[in-house]
Amino acid sequence: MRNLILKLQYDGSRYHGWQRQNNAISVQGVLEQAIEKLFSAHCTVYGCSRTDAGVHANEYFCNFRTDKNIPCDAVIRAMNSYLPYDVAVLDCREAADDFHARFHCVSKEYIYRIWNSPLKNPFTATTMYHYRYRLDEKILNEAAKDYIGTYDYSAFCASGSSVEDTVRTVMNASVKRQNDEVVFTVEANGFLYNMVRIMVGTLLNINEGKIDGNAIKNIILSGDRTLAGVTAPPQGLYLNKVHYKVGEIYVE
Amino acid sequence: MRNLILKLQYDGSRYHGWQRQNNAISVQGVLEQAIEKLFSAHCTVYGCSRTDAGVHANEYFCNFRTDKNIPCDAVIRAMNSYLPYDVAVLDCREAADDFHARFHCVSKEYIYRIWNSPLKNPFTATTMYHYRYRLDEKILNEAAKDYIGTYDYSAFCASGSSVEDTVRTVMNASVKRQNDEVVFTVEANGFLYNMVRIMVGTLLNINEGKIDGNAIKNIILSGDRTLAGVTAPPQGLYLNKVHYKVGEIYVE
Repeated sequence: MRNLILKLQYDGSRYHGWQRQNNAISVQGVLEQAIEKLFSAHCTVYGCSRTDAGVHANEYFCNFRTDKNIPCDAVIRAMNSYLPYDVAVLDCREAADDFHARFHCVSKEYIYRIWNSPLKNPFTATTMYHYRYRLDEKILNEAAKDYIGTYDYSAFCASGSSVEDTVRTVMNASVKRQNDEVVFTVEANGFLYNMVRIMVGTLLNINEGKIDGNAIKNIILSGDRTLAGVTAPPQGLYLNKVHYKVGEIYVE
Repeated sequence: MRNLILKLQYDGSRYHGWQRQNNAISVQGVLEQAIEKLFSAHCTVYGCSRTDAGVHANEYFCNFRTDKNIPCDAVIRAMNSYLPYDVAVLDCREAADDFHARFHCVSKEYIYRIWNSPLKNPFTATTMYHYRYRLDEKILNEAAKDYIGTYDYSAFCASGSSVEDTVRTVMNASVKRQNDEVVFTVEANGFLYNMVRIMVGTLLNINEGKIDGNAIKNIILSGDRTLAGVTAPPQGLYLNKVHYKVGEIYVE
């Protein structure tokens, strides 16, 4: 059996998230349909992350097994013609037998894009979060650094999550502005449910003076979700980069 | 009566063009609905251009008359809350009594955005035209200069148009690349039906070797639509700037 890995990019606006669901359109669903059409057999696709409804991916990896010998180049072309306009296959390679897009992932980077202007932007309504009040990116960038470290991030996890181990390592966290766009970037070895969106919401609440700019470390240590900020809406969130061990992902 | 002028921006993807229609959603239609809600009276809106289905506007002016004394700032805020996410009011001012957004327009600039990559882009499917084969922006920029001048542009007018005077002055025309995006920019004192899209299609046909790079002036002089290129699809086209006489548009 070949273990094929696809590199995807998708605009999640129209989707109820990555995961296949019965009565709702999902990225995994349209992908498995396109694969079934091309390979004439159902293949379960293993994704690197279960992105939520309305969340996007600039880079996303998934893998599936097949015994059909369709060359990788032909897979890319055919998949792109079978898939809807808002899901793209950017690459296809053969991976090692045991490769798994989720379990073998070493770290991921998310970005959260904010349209920071009093003016409405008709072109970014589903791809950025519109926040009217001026954000102070210098103060927020300083505050964001406090997200870095190895901690129990329970305070930044949506209630109802069933994950047992809530310790993660955040390697990078920053806030940058480019004109009217403010971007929060965070890299970690793993993320809890809604973790990035609560991190962003907490920064917005800091900007509004509702949370102290120096409070983040104490909020983390408290483990108390109620001390962190609001959950920012999904449309600004993008899975941006997915890292595997060097040499693992692409077996030439 | 106050003569109010609105500066708009819209993503035309979901609309059957600017002009109000009976059984289809239009930008003028949603705008007149929002105005009716705010001013409790129907007002006819005069737009600066009748953009086609799927065509966008980075800048668009329209005007309408009302005797209600709602301040301009409040009009902007209320209109933006009544309008759908893909139509924005960026400004509102009072114009002189006789101001008309279309007839008083001195020149307009359109841009045509092309996603020029072999890779599908899920984020720009409705806001750029995807053209896979490498465009030579230097050659096309040279060719585009031949669009400049005062001519009868009948060869660049969709058949079936009923305009009598087909002479226009094109002041600027250029092609520029920024990474994987190639943009055609053209400014004129007026445009014939589908003129920009046929200009773009002709440049694409030049890139493909189907039309000679030096042929544009002769195609213009021929007045023969069949000698020009294909009509490029609507999703790459944006009304970008609208010019009025200095001091005319904004009566402070």
